[in-house]
Amino acid sequence: MLTIFGSIAYDTIRTPAKIVKNALGGAATYAAISASFFVKPGLIGVIGQDFPKNYQNILNRFVDTRGVVHAKGKTFRYDGSYDSTLSMRTTNKTELNVLKDFKPVVPEEYRKSEFVYLANNDPAQNTRILKEFDRVKFSMCDTIEFWISSKRNDVIKMMGSVDSVVINDEEAKLLTKNHNLIKAAKKIMGWGTKYVIIKKGEHGSLLFYEDMIFPSPAFSMEDIVDPTGAGDSFAGGMIGYLSNKNNTKISTIREAAVYGNVMGSFAVEKYGVYGITGLKRSDIKKRFDRYKKMVRF
Amino acid sequence: MLTIFGSIAYDTIRTPAKIVKNALGGAATYAAISASFFVKPGLIGVIGQDFPKNYQNILNRFVDTRGVVHAKGKTFRYDGSYDSTLSMRTTNKTELNVLKDFKPVVPEEYRKSEFVYLANNDPAQNTRILKEFDRVKFSMCDTIEFWISSKRNDVIKMMGSVDSVVINDEEAKLLTKNHNLIKAAKKIMGWGTKYVIIKKGEHGSLLFYEDMIFPSPAFSMEDIVDPTGAGDSFAGGMIGYLSNKNNTKISTIREAAVYGNVMGSFAVEKYGVYGITGLKRSDIKKRFDRYKKMVRF
Repeated sequence: MLTIFGSIAYDTIRTPAKIVKNALGGAATYAAISASFFVKPGLIGVIGQDFPKNYQNILNRFVDTRGVVHAKGKTFRYDGSYDSTLSMRTTNKTELNVLKDFKPVVPEEYRKSEFVYLANNDPAQNTRILKEFDRVKFSMCDTIEFWISSKRNDVIKMMGSVDSVVINDEEAKLLTKNHNLIKAAKKIMGWGTKYVIIKKGEHGSLLFYEDMIFPSPAFSMEDIVDPTGAGDSFAGGMIGYLSNKNNTKISTIREAAVYGNVMGSFAVEKYGVYGITGLKRSDIKKRFDRYKKMVRF
Repeated sequence: MLTIFGSIAYDTIRTPAKIVKNALGGAATYAAISASFFVKPGLIGVIGQDFPKNYQNILNRFVDTRGVVHAKGKTFRYDGSYDSTLSMRTTNKTELNVLKDFKPVVPEEYRKSEFVYLANNDPAQNTRILKEFDRVKFSMCDTIEFWISSKRNDVIKMMGSVDSVVINDEEAKLLTKNHNLIKAAKKIMGWGTKYVIIKKGEHGSLLFYEDMIFPSPAFSMEDIVDPTGAGDSFAGGMIGYLSNKNNTKISTIREAAVYGNVMGSFAVEKYGVYGITGLKRSDIKKRFDRYKKMVRF
């Protein structure tokens, strides 16, 4: 089984073309829906009383929601604006709401999960919750600037407790204080994780393992609508594929990184989660095959 | 035969680690030396009376210098500084010197060249000189911000007269006024060229042809010493490989783009041209094979 722990949110997304309010969002939402095309993931998160029925239905359709806690108060809210190139995002407002006092617990049914993805949560909380799983074969975490700036030591400790770190290029540079991504990845591996995946947006990703580097370009997209959740969809697709294959051979992890890129490319095609919720498994396989053909020489 | 037309220079390179004065440089110098590992290219350019014997010896060792004109005055000089990440360069000084009144002529011996590379020269001059060749099978040009800003229409006309355009990502955006590289490439193809290669530095390159996109990641480098000439070495390696294969099948052009990335990766390993002058053909083949293994999944 695969368990994903992280935020479920109400997003306001502002692009030059459109403003979308109260969209279903959150790192764990994207990652779990993305992973769901490979396995049925268990989701751990919290929602408030304002979380509407139709969003609950979306979650129920894709994931095991036994780990989703309904709390008193309002759902976590995020409001962000993209620049004209859709490559820079500014945070307008973050309201933690029910996320603030959330004490995540791993449901009994999830404890035997062999694959665990810890999205952009408090690093100390991530480290602690990972210990509640009994049979972890492959754990992965992401982090964001907020935690790097406020709890750097906890981030480093967390990265030493997981098998794999998936992280944005800018955040990898910020965290390691090194602008060379290879040096940055080596530094992160030095903290104890075996694999590092650096996400570079339109430039694809770099996977590091021992002395190996596997660069995979992004699936080239002419029309990007909304980059929100692309990185989370990448991570979800990657660990979803691994969980489906139920192995952690390096050749499988390389394929998984390509599936990550593929899922990220779907995520940006529509606003919110709708780039991935409308997919069929055959769409994903088709794009993976096109990708394979695209990079061949 | 392959002919390369462009600047031969005295460079001053300033990196945070070191300042190198009076280094052998110039777009055509890098491109021609890089191409020389595949074919012996003819070089068209101009040098001044201050151009030292040892630099002439380097050129003679790698290229056919019958097209190099010795003019009265000083050699073209360029002085640039890199920032701490080695990814941004600021021009401190450009002295055109003998380049200013240079009227390039294609030597009789070069006229039958089937492969022609026009480096970052005056676009009108590039368009004109291309007509002096009788049997061009594959022509390629590059351009720089200076010409885009000062002679945009001539740049566009030039791009309509060659088979292939190789250009940096930032310059492609500036030229086409579009931040999406696919849209930018399509716009350039709309001006008449068949192939567009966008160089993205550490992120590799994108090759465009009709509806095809071939992204190839850069050969991952942990230690970059001096990025000067990497793009020119890319272009030289690419057209050198094509010229050696003497065909312009799309599969060959894809391989050529990978050789471009490989040559660019060597160029940044040492100051000035010394990243490529010390190479053996076997080093290049070896890195190409490593590259192939690196990207496989």
